[in-house]
Amino acid sequence: MNIRFYNGKILCTKENHKFEVIEGELWVKGNKIIYVGDGGDLEEVYKKQKEPCILWDREIDAKGYVIMPGFKNAHTHSAMTFLRSFADDLPLKEWLYNQIFPREEKLMPGDIYHLCKLGIMEYLTSGITANFDMYLNPIEIARASADCGFRTVQTSGLNDFTRSLSLLEEDYHIVNEMSELTGFLLGFHGEYTTGRELMEGVAKLSEKLKSPVWFHNSETKKEVEECRKRYGMTPTQITEALGMYAFGGGGYHCIFFDDRDFEIYRKRGLTAVTNPSSNLKLASGIAPTARFLEEGISVAIGTDGPASNNCLDMFREMFLVTGLAKVREGDAAIVPAEEVLYMATAGGARAMQLSDCDSLAEGKLADLILIDLNQPNMQPENDFVKNIVYSGSKSNVALTMVNGRILYEKGEFFIGAESGEVYAKANEIIERMK
Amino acid sequence: MNIRFYNGKILCTKENHKFEVIEGELWVKGNKIIYVGDGGDLEEVYKKQKEPCILWDREIDAKGYVIMPGFKNAHTHSAMTFLRSFADDLPLKEWLYNQIFPREEKLMPGDIYHLCKLGIMEYLTSGITANFDMYLNPIEIARASADCGFRTVQTSGLNDFTRSLSLLEEDYHIVNEMSELTGFLLGFHGEYTTGRELMEGVAKLSEKLKSPVWFHNSETKKEVEECRKRYGMTPTQITEALGMYAFGGGGYHCIFFDDRDFEIYRKRGLTAVTNPSSNLKLASGIAPTARFLEEGISVAIGTDGPASNNCLDMFREMFLVTGLAKVREGDAAIVPAEEVLYMATAGGARAMQLSDCDSLAEGKLADLILIDLNQPNMQPENDFVKNIVYSGSKSNVALTMVNGRILYEKGEFFIGAESGEVYAKANEIIERMK
Repeated sequence: MNIRFYNGKILCTKENHKFEVIEGELWVKGNKIIYVGDGGDLEEVYKKQKEPCILWDREIDAKGYVIMPGFKNAHTHSAMTFLRSFADDLPLKEWLYNQIFPREEKLMPGDIYHLCKLGIMEYLTSGITANFDMYLNPIEIARASADCGFRTVQTSGLNDFTRSLSLLEEDYHIVNEMSELTGFLLGFHGEYTTGRELMEGVAKLSEKLKSPVWFHNSETKKEVEECRKRYGMTPTQITEALGMYAFGGGGYHCIFFDDRDFEIYRKRGLTAVTNPSSNLKLASGIAPTARFLEEGISVAIGTDGPASNNCLDMFREMFLVTGLAKVREGDAAIVPAEEVLYMATAGGARAMQLSDCDSLAEGKLADLILIDLNQPNMQPENDFVKNIVYSGSKSNVALTMVNGRILYEKGEFFIGAESGEVYAKANEIIERMK
Repeated sequence: MNIRFYNGKILCTKENHKFEVIEGELWVKGNKIIYVGDGGDLEEVYKKQKEPCILWDREIDAKGYVIMPGFKNAHTHSAMTFLRSFADDLPLKEWLYNQIFPREEKLMPGDIYHLCKLGIMEYLTSGITANFDMYLNPIEIARASADCGFRTVQTSGLNDFTRSLSLLEEDYHIVNEMSELTGFLLGFHGEYTTGRELMEGVAKLSEKLKSPVWFHNSETKKEVEECRKRYGMTPTQITEALGMYAFGGGGYHCIFFDDRDFEIYRKRGLTAVTNPSSNLKLASGIAPTARFLEEGISVAIGTDGPASNNCLDMFREMFLVTGLAKVREGDAAIVPAEEVLYMATAGGARAMQLSDCDSLAEGKLADLILIDLNQPNMQPENDFVKNIVYSGSKSNVALTMVNGRILYEKGEFFIGAESGEVYAKANEIIERMK
């Protein structure tokens, strides 16, 4: 499909985590952006395309909309949609061991495929164009994304109780080769569920495959204390000692860091993915986001899964990233809006190795969204970026495009499945387990 | 208008801050609810109405929707919409003195009227059916609400620099008598802006008018410390000592409370209105919500104004009330979803003396909203209340009715003003001040 957006305010990502608004046109040909500009230099574009003109399948008047890069949800467990609002307001251990694990055991083949589709639909309503997923069946997850036309990078939830190193290697290849929309980076569940030997195996595999490594890192105080008891080191330090970061990577949550942890993240160019809603709801803590930024460490934002959040909404997370940083440090001036928008777009893309769809520019993959400004929460138009970060909502997302295809527009989904069927399937799966 | 909702899931407020779902019908005649039930006892309803039948102006199939009481936004400064995203990420003092106050001085007659309308539109998109407002011109605020068909209770921002006791008394009468939609309760800005003599005057006036008293209370640590220096007491204690609570009332924010403050609130039956987004964004702190509940103190929820939040969204606030309480106390089990939904509806109504529209029942005023369940964030349907509190969004609000009139439905406003004009006016006002 060739799609022309005109009359739009196009949010372009600049150096130093800044954004610039260009008023004009954005052209999509196939799955790529071929032009972003004010429309004054179109001769050049046609020459480059080696075509006298482009036949448009659709021309979209974007007057009153901001066209911006899609959000990247840098940590989630999409298929946990079935457990949304099923068990909440419980102490963490009771929630996990008595409610979550027993239900996960009852999942049947195909369930994760369907449950992922529900998660993908929710991402689309929130302007999320790619997710970084970790759950039980990487093949089903990848198949759901490829079938919907959605972009998913996965890592593994490998631990002492599920999967294995050889399965991990197999997943890596199958998922990376399945589709241009599906990727896989090495990872494991967390230090507290994974013995030293298995972690050493992951480190070796990362050298062999030249892959970054990801895991849940320092989410709770207890996790870090127990790791210190075991190794005399934090999770960041033991994984560094085991040689896991030769090809980068990072951690999810990253709340309880000491000076040495920050140093390792800085030195290795790792990314801290922050998950503020989940950290509140599970009473885990508030991440030291301001310190990460001060040290020049890359930060990305994730919703975590719908069982712990319970909502897959980047607008909620963006407000929390800055709001929680401000209250944690007692300083209303820190972690400003532009920095947060950068994390939610280019920061996530960096974590997921999606540099080809991290911003709106010629040659980039067309992963973009339209934000409706003609709603009360976007008025007056004092500052688009601040309006989006501080005041934005799912209701402002008018269109979500992934890889050049419109998957969501004005409340309708175009993912090759009927929404009613996806909802029915999710209800059927959880009903079976009650 | 007579409006019949059928096939709906109706959320009814029960004792002990619980909710019950009734599947069936809700009838609105004029501005009142005349029936809520499963439709099995309609003979009785007709008999009570002394009519053989009701001629419906509209019959709405509510299949796939939850019908619930509208949210009550228990603390806000609606007209500050013009300053949304105008100045953020600044230290509090610089923000207030260099950015906010100089612009407020430039407001011209009529501006507040128009700016309030923009706030009201945003409330409607978030399912808010009444607000508790405090700002510079109570008459313009009341006029905006009455003209839109929206319900607003106001208090005064009286302090040593603006308004006076005689103006306060005048406002009280004019606003309370203006319309069935507009009310006024006594109040003043805060202890830190209001001298002892003026506070004594408010106390006397409250006795004369038998009105509760409201003010910004213990929002920042500094405010409480300075009050202690002045009076050897906290703001709660000095206002109690001045005899302000003979007819109830309460405070906005209520973050830094000591044991004696809790005792006064409990003994006097006062309400603590919590404003979590604003408290994060201005780096003020996290309110002791769990303690208020433990002590049986009534809690309500407010968005605060759009200059400090920047968003007028009860869904964001509800998630934050529970999430921040959980992380503050390190306990994922506290301040459960039902309790939060109660605060956001009946709790707010109690604060605003709106007991006639606090819930859905026969004889109550028809202030209600429809929540669309056929969206991914509301699926599967494990628990409606938890879905609304933990996962709900403005995008789920399909219809907002105030006093029996539909003011918002599926993205369209019915407030006697064109949305484009309201946006243009707000932009014009702030442009004038740049």
